[in-house]
Amino acid sequence: MNTQRIEKVIENMHACGLNQLIVTSPANVFYLTGVWCEPFERMLALHVKDDGTLKLYANKMFALQGLTDVPMVEYEDTDDCIAVLAPDMLPGALGIDKTWPSHFTIRLMQQRPDIRPALGSQPLDDARLTKDAEELELMRTSSRMNVEVCTRIGQALKEGVTEKEIQSLYNKIALELGASGPSFTPLICFGKNGAEPHHDSDNTPLRQGDTVIMDVGLLWKHYCSDMTRTVHFGEVSDEQKRVHDIVTAANRAGIAACRPGVKMKDIDRAARKVIEDAGYGPYFTHRTGHGIGLDEHEFPDCSSVSETITRPGMIFSIEPGIYLPGKFGVRVEDLVVITEDGCEVITW
Amino acid sequence: MNTQRIEKVIENMHACGLNQLIVTSPANVFYLTGVWCEPFERMLALHVKDDGTLKLYANKMFALQGLTDVPMVEYEDTDDCIAVLAPDMLPGALGIDKTWPSHFTIRLMQQRPDIRPALGSQPLDDARLTKDAEELELMRTSSRMNVEVCTRIGQALKEGVTEKEIQSLYNKIALELGASGPSFTPLICFGKNGAEPHHDSDNTPLRQGDTVIMDVGLLWKHYCSDMTRTVHFGEVSDEQKRVHDIVTAANRAGIAACRPGVKMKDIDRAARKVIEDAGYGPYFTHRTGHGIGLDEHEFPDCSSVSETITRPGMIFSIEPGIYLPGKFGVRVEDLVVITEDGCEVITW
Repeated sequence: MNTQRIEKVIENMHACGLNQLIVTSPANVFYLTGVWCEPFERMLALHVKDDGTLKLYANKMFALQGLTDVPMVEYEDTDDCIAVLAPDMLPGALGIDKTWPSHFTIRLMQQRPDIRPALGSQPLDDARLTKDAEELELMRTSSRMNVEVCTRIGQALKEGVTEKEIQSLYNKIALELGASGPSFTPLICFGKNGAEPHHDSDNTPLRQGDTVIMDVGLLWKHYCSDMTRTVHFGEVSDEQKRVHDIVTAANRAGIAACRPGVKMKDIDRAARKVIEDAGYGPYFTHRTGHGIGLDEHEFPDCSSVSETITRPGMIFSIEPGIYLPGKFGVRVEDLVVITEDGCEVITW
Repeated sequence: MNTQRIEKVIENMHACGLNQLIVTSPANVFYLTGVWCEPFERMLALHVKDDGTLKLYANKMFALQGLTDVPMVEYEDTDDCIAVLAPDMLPGALGIDKTWPSHFTIRLMQQRPDIRPALGSQPLDDARLTKDAEELELMRTSSRMNVEVCTRIGQALKEGVTEKEIQSLYNKIALELGASGPSFTPLICFGKNGAEPHHDSDNTPLRQGDTVIMDVGLLWKHYCSDMTRTVHFGEVSDEQKRVHDIVTAANRAGIAACRPGVKMKDIDRAARKVIEDAGYGPYFTHRTGHGIGLDEHEFPDCSSVSETITRPGMIFSIEPGIYLPGKFGVRVEDLVVITEDGCEVITW
């Protein structure tokens, strides 16, 4: 377990008025214990008390032999896993990790009506907000590999190739380079499919004049990368070129606003203003960016309402976009690290 | 929307004493509305009242234009999504879909203390338990494709190939055949890695004498397949052969017990008994199987405590295994459909 991180989490728990937490996301459990476990639908729960004691509840099948310094309670598929955990909880407020499936929380409330579930992710979110030197190096490597794979799939764009083929190629090259996999399903969008920000890649073939969005990321030792490049294939219209220029300028304006002590909403504003001033405001339909690290999307948002103030060691995306329904879309995404006096772009 | 399915769900709600549900899993929302949406960390919630009225709360970015017959409330990234939904909820018990991230449930309780969250998945689980003719055909096609891909990766096993390479090949062939992707990350395990039931495929190379587990599945029009084949590479020990024979016999015994009107725990028993009688009981560390359909793992379990009684149209896996730590593992998994007078194996 990582004593320094646990101390920081306990400090954050006190700030929230919590004396106990149920930590359940694979990334949060890994962050504190060094053990990564994907429980799928089964229960994985790390009980953290503010006296510094931890206990991990895990299915026997997970076989977490690597964990020697955290007491562990194993249950079997035939056990009521909540009944195994419930007696150990303190009465009163219990911080619950945000993504814990609701049925666990509801069953715990039924078995322990003296417990009051509370939002419990802030102590971990805040600790993970700034990355230490080791994490920064892993994030840089993850992004360096991602740039390489993205460049190579860009070279594979040719008339008639399908979105799914490029998607599959991304996954293949990422694995060949040593990634443990993509950090999310690669979003490859040709032509008007690019106007749907979350289009599922399909068998659409690439045609001359298409604008192509490649939004891709991979996993390197559990750390995520994420970047988007938009390119034109063949001869394109003036509008396609103009929109690409505007989105690139918005991305650069967002990056230029990144330094310590700035509110995230002001970074969002800097990027959004460029698109609004060009008359495309209504077509930029999402936040400017999101934190990233062990999870692909993590705290905080870079949105028009985010009051979070930047600090050195924070990493987040700057990804403005313009989506013209029925026509095409453009998104340009980079990851920035806040440094002592500005920022470092790790996807260039 | 699917009126017949909604009527069945409302009937099930009455049986649970619920007059309202929050349906949130992509599969459940799709099952009732015909629209598939992966919300990732954003909120997707379908409010179902027992008077038959439905309302869908979705992020504007999801762009669910396809949905014409269900009233929809869209929110933006900058809204408090729970504040958008909370006023419409009836006071009292509210069934919550099992996988809804806890922070939504907790925030809803904070904003509406007059609401009592209850376990709310049973009405959907029960409706989805038996598949209709159209669903059965999609499940058969999904499995037929999976058998084809699994056969082809089996042919690609050669000395020195790595687990990750075979994993990547599975994904590639599945996409080529028209699947929208794997239904879970293919579990490819060589040699002693097979002794961990949830081993993450890595760069381990295939060696003469290895036992190889291939646990794979794909998605065909949202319907999942799932099967496991264990094969020996080169000359193997008598123990490897014997354990494979025992597990195969356990799989066949489980399948032989599949017919309507049987308790799932008796099917588990039939498979488990073969392994216990052979002296390997302690090394079969998980349930015998799980339901499958729109989700890779769905209700019910086929475990030693499952009282669910089989009915025609149910589909689940029979996947006994023996895991010998430090040595090798064997798992043999097929999917069975309960028919009027027995069962049909859709993975042969």
